[in-house]
Amino acid sequence: MSKNNKKRILTGDRPTGKLHLGHYVGSLQNRVKLQNEYDTFLIIADVQALTTNFDHPEKLSEDVRQVARDYLAAGIDPEKTTIFVQSLVPEIAELTVLYSMIVTVNQLRHNPTIKSEAEQYGYQEMSYGFLGYPVSQAADITFCQANLVPVGEDQIPHIEQTRKIVRKFNNMYGEVFPEPEALISDFPRLIGLDGKNKMSKSLNNAIYLSDSKEKVSQKIMKAKTDPARIHKDDPGNPEVCTVFHYQKAFNTKNHTQIAEKCRAGTIGCVACKKKMIKKLNLFLEPMRERRKKYLENPELIDQILNKGTAKARKEAAKTMKKVREVMKIDYFNN
Amino acid sequence: MSKNNKKRILTGDRPTGKLHLGHYVGSLQNRVKLQNEYDTFLIIADVQALTTNFDHPEKLSEDVRQVARDYLAAGIDPEKTTIFVQSLVPEIAELTVLYSMIVTVNQLRHNPTIKSEAEQYGYQEMSYGFLGYPVSQAADITFCQANLVPVGEDQIPHIEQTRKIVRKFNNMYGEVFPEPEALISDFPRLIGLDGKNKMSKSLNNAIYLSDSKEKVSQKIMKAKTDPARIHKDDPGNPEVCTVFHYQKAFNTKNHTQIAEKCRAGTIGCVACKKKMIKKLNLFLEPMRERRKKYLENPELIDQILNKGTAKARKEAAKTMKKVREVMKIDYFNN
Ligand code: SF4
Ligand code: SF4
Repeated sequence: MSKNNKKRILTGDRPTGKLHLGHYVGSLQNRVKLQNEYDTFLIIADVQALTTNFDHPEKLSEDVRQVARDYLAAGIDPEKTTIFVQSLVPEIAELTVLYSMIVTVNQLRHNPTIKSEAEQYGYQEMSYGFLGYPVSQAADITFCQANLVPVGEDQIPHIEQTRKIVRKFNNMYGEVFPEPEALISDFPRLIGLDGKNKMSKSLNNAIYLSDSKEKVSQKIMKAKTDPARIHKDDPGNPEVCTVFHYQKAFNTKNHTQIAEKCRAGTIGCVACKKKMIKKLNLFLEPMRERRKKYLENPELIDQILNKGTAKARKEAAKTMKKVREVMKIDYFNN
Repeated sequence: MSKNNKKRILTGDRPTGKLHLGHYVGSLQNRVKLQNEYDTFLIIADVQALTTNFDHPEKLSEDVRQVARDYLAAGIDPEKTTIFVQSLVPEIAELTVLYSMIVTVNQLRHNPTIKSEAEQYGYQEMSYGFLGYPVSQAADITFCQANLVPVGEDQIPHIEQTRKIVRKFNNMYGEVFPEPEALISDFPRLIGLDGKNKMSKSLNNAIYLSDSKEKVSQKIMKAKTDPARIHKDDPGNPEVCTVFHYQKAFNTKNHTQIAEKCRAGTIGCVACKKKMIKKLNLFLEPMRERRKKYLENPELIDQILNKGTAKARKEAAKTMKKVREVMKIDYFNN
């Protein structure tokens, strides 16, 4: 727990490119709210991004700044949230190595992420680092003594692995870590512009937080609607319409009315899309304003990341001091 | 390679207790010689000791100092050899985590140490850290840009794993590391006092470098000789005698003569043992002198370890700087 008696949250992302509306709805929006109640540590997990992108690290430098810009644009306040870069906190690697001694290969193979990866590609060609993803996650969560980790229902088993490591460590050596709890926050997954899959960069079906007015307009104009609707006064079925899915998420006040009009055939898809575009751009406008500041002063991003990372390292050093003490490997008190 | 153009060696031990004559014959003696030709880095691998001793770390603090004392007593010169503690060099953990991304689980399962451990206990209950032992070893060897690793013939496959990691890293990101080579040094394994097994702490069949005169005498007096020899003038077979095994190792000038006398029945076992005790104590005497200095001034050990560790960290920082550069994760040049 932090000095101000607020519980501490650890959350974050692998820096794999621009954030989109799906990220906003699924986690960012929630983080922007949580930072007022909790002492939030926001990790840019670049080392974990290497597990899947290990052969193109040159992208990371831009991706790290991109994700930071997206956070700040979306309303993450660097005065409330500590944004930091994983690879610049060596204590996370130290904890990963120490935890790796108290986790069996078997336990890792039961982890849902590892299991599903293994089902696809087998265990044999999996990198050693990928197999250890739950161990590294435990290090991310515990290095700053986090109490809470905001996750969806489906991610509870991930936190469970960290809790197991914490219990084992605390029992074996002495109480160092709070047992982190999942802060369940289930948000609907945002569907992509293809109307079929979850919004995702790799499926090329995303509206990015950094998209321009025109880009948003183009993307929505091309979005799939009710395919059975041919003329604009045909009755439509909003439930099968991608645009309506976004109306529900971003036009919370008027979406019922739009659904009625669509069903009655009293609103055309073009008009409906235009409303949506207007709404989305209204929503994205303040983000664009904030982003502009950071694009014009890119050194601000580096300053914020440096400051956040320095704060994270300070917490990390405090934790490692305790760890060395209870493990009795603080040989020279250094 | 170090500044003075000497090739660099990485060698070391897990701190698991007092060193014995087997260690001396098998590696220490060689290290004492090598330190004159090479820039030697001597790692006290305490983190790796946790892989097997993870539930008794409190022993480590004494064990680390014990092994350092044994090194110094045996003739390791801290002016020539950099003695350092693994857990105090966080860059080794950082490299371990980075390397873990470029090694597959499959490769690790083919490592001889892992394989033989798995044959005994299975893969499932193996700790994740133990499975990654070859990765951590690669980090130990490379963090200081070592060129050579003194090993026995049987350990070549271990070095091969490190060479593979180095090649993959250098190819993928850029030349950072020299490809370390095995410096083959095959010394006979010293048999234990039981006359059956390799000398080893866990088998309780060892003569320690720190044993007193009296202790050495007691141990040799109880050592197994040729069991067929009943009277002191019976002809003996030195080849089956533990004491003769030590004569060969530590009484190099006279062992042929002793063998002849034994075979002729002109030397009794007690007389033979007394010669051996004298020889061993002569050999251990200078070590006892040096050890005394460190026992009387225990702060010297800590000073040497601190100085060595500081030097190791300096090398480690240089290496990590290069690593971050070629991996393009030196985001803020820090
Ligand atoms: S009117 Fe709107 S909700 Fe109905 S099908 Fe068209 S775009 Fe979708
Ligand atoms: S005389 Fe010496 S070498 Fe021969 S059996 Fe006795 S102890 Fe061994």
